[in-house]
Amino acid sequence: MKITILTTGGTIEKTYNEHDGSLRNYHTILPKMLSTLRLPDLDVTYKKVVFKDSLEMTEEDRRRILDEVRRMLPESDAIVILHGTDTLSKTGELLHRELAELRIPIILTGAMRPYEFRDTDAVQNVTESLLAARLVPPGVYVVMHNRVLRFPGVVKDHDRLTFTKP
Amino acid sequence: MKITILTTGGTIEKTYNEHDGSLRNYHTILPKMLSTLRLPDLDVTYKKVVFKDSLEMTEEDRRRILDEVRRMLPESDAIVILHGTDTLSKTGELLHRELAELRIPIILTGAMRPYEFRDTDAVQNVTESLLAARLVPPGVYVVMHNRVLRFPGVVKDHDRLTFTKP
Amino acid sequence: MKITILTTGGTIEKTYNEHDGSLRNYHTILPKMLSTLRLPDLDVTYKKVVFKDSLEMTEEDRRRILDEVRRMLPESDAIVILHGTDTLSKTGELLHRELAELRIPIILTGAMRPYEFRDTDAVQNVTESLLAARLVPPGVYVVMHNRVLRFPGVVKDHDRLTFTKP
Amino acid sequence: MKITILTTGGTIEKTYNEHDGSLRNYHTILPKMLSTLRLPDLDVTYKKVVFKDSLEMTEEDRRRILDEVRRMLPESDAIVILHGTDTLSKTGELLHRELAELRIPIILTGAMRPYEFRDTDAVQNVTESLLAARLVPPGVYVVMHNRVLRFPGVVKDHDRLTFTKP
Repeated sequence: MKITILTTGGTIEKTYNEHDGSLRNYHTILPKMLSTLRLPDLDVTYKKVVFKDSLEMTEEDRRRILDEVRRMLPESDAIVILHGTDTLSKTGELLHRELAELRIPIILTGAMRPYEFRDTDAVQNVTESLLAARLVPPGVYVVMHNRVLRFPGVVKDHDRLTFTKP
Repeated sequence: MKITILTTGGTIEKTYNEHDGSLRNYHTILPKMLSTLRLPDLDVTYKKVVFKDSLEMTEEDRRRILDEVRRMLPESDAIVILHGTDTLSKTGELLHRELAELRIPIILTGAMRPYEFRDTDAVQNVTESLLAARLVPPGVYVVMHNRVLRFPGVVKDHDRLTFTKP
Repeated sequence: MKITILTTGGTIEKTYNEHDGSLRNYHTILPKMLSTLRLPDLDVTYKKVVFKDSLEMTEEDRRRILDEVRRMLPESDAIVILHGTDTLSKTGELLHRELAELRIPIILTGAMRPYEFRDTDAVQNVTESLLAARLVPPGVYVVMHNRVLRFPGVVKDHDRLTFTKP
Repeated sequence: MKITILTTGGTIEKTYNEHDGSLRNYHTILPKMLSTLRLPDLDVTYKKVVFKDSLEMTEEDRRRILDEVRRMLPESDAIVILHGTDTLSKTGELLHRELAELRIPIILTGAMRPYEFRDTDAVQNVTESLLAARLVPPGVYVVMHNRVLRFPGVVKDHDRLTFTKP
């Protein structure tokens, strides 16, 4: 099964800079994280599209994500997108609106706590997304915290720090 | 969603005894493992049925698992069973044969490396099983290593250390 | 052996806030870290004195640390102080200058990467400090990264991200 | 500072075999463990001497350890020996008896729980041994669990799972 993982940065990919104590999107942790999972049947391709805190994403950044998804659609059985949670819904709604007649699932995921932390939810969310990629019908989704939510209408629940579909 | 997790021991649940250096099914690590996952919508009940290396399981043990599954069926939306990998297929075939007209998924899982090890696959497999519990149609399955395999006909691949359906 | 651990915050004690993505001195991780070490002979008392990034420490904060060290001297066989690395040397020089005729070792330590990160050096540095507490003669020290450096004259090496005595 | 680490196997170095579920001395984890520590001033050489459960060590094995220690003495500032805990005292007494006029410390250490386990004491004990190597006078020691015990007369405390000097 061919999976394309597009990373756009966000909390899940923030790493620590020992020189100035900052926590930012410096480099992707995706290959490191994937190497800890056992995925014997997956043929994974990954690619950085934009790489930033999702609060700083512009409309142009979201367009680039959409363009990259379109480019990878023909050669993917599913696409997983790592994204900051603050504007993930915005990108999800755009993909849902623009990608009519999807043949495959597009799954957005992220984390409330960066991968580099001991108590991160990143590994859980990526593990779930890669499994959902096999099981859900075509559509645009958030997969996180044992939830599978389909666009349109998915929003971040800022109090409970997860996603929900009211 | 109501999930019942039945543990029967096996590699996933083996723990280390510092007094004699043995690695055996001493006590369940399930509550500890579940506490590291974010499962806001799951109502999880867990129960020890038998607790041993699956090579030592008797036909009577397997009957007790079947009986416990039957007892929990009416009050569960899905049942996940932790099981040693060596005879997991035997138990899966029994459940598949005896449980006609299933209304819910029964998911067997385990690990090649115990939960207590740094490089365990236990967390991945349980995360996947709890997500598959939401997504797959009624039936008896193995979920492990990003694979979802439905009984009958699932077997352990001893060379590649995973499950397969030839 | 009676050890007093005074925490003053700093990088070692920074924790992540999932609501706003900040990394700050919110609460001490000391009891959690100590519970992962085997210290059968140590009688450990710990206490928060000030709790902040050491760049924000005032002269008054440093005085409070000095006062607390003085108060704990009579009932301690050694004192370990967790401190931000940026102004640790300033506090160390003050303690060295003000505490004449020390009967016990005072050991300052910290971390380049907070305890909550997978690749933290916090556990190494605290482990080393608690062992040095048994072995070094009275005096004021930095113990970190397999180095034992005695004041006066210890400074942070900003390029190599450790402490040194030129 | 030049440190020689000799590994002889034992619990600290036991690793898991996924094919048969055994936990044995298959290969050294020493380079992996050392890579997680920050040791900017240490020049570390390591070498496998024998590699087994210390209950299976013969007098000849212990002689080989002694010979290897003798060979490395002239080029080391300290020697650390990883050893199974069950007969560590026997090897320690032999080294103490045979190595008169030591110029450097020889430190034996090990673990009650193998390095590959999440809750191992291996990292603590090696961290402590590498620091003690800088601080203790010449002699033969066990360093473990925040204890520094000098031969002769050090024994394993089987109830409390640590070393002691009665």
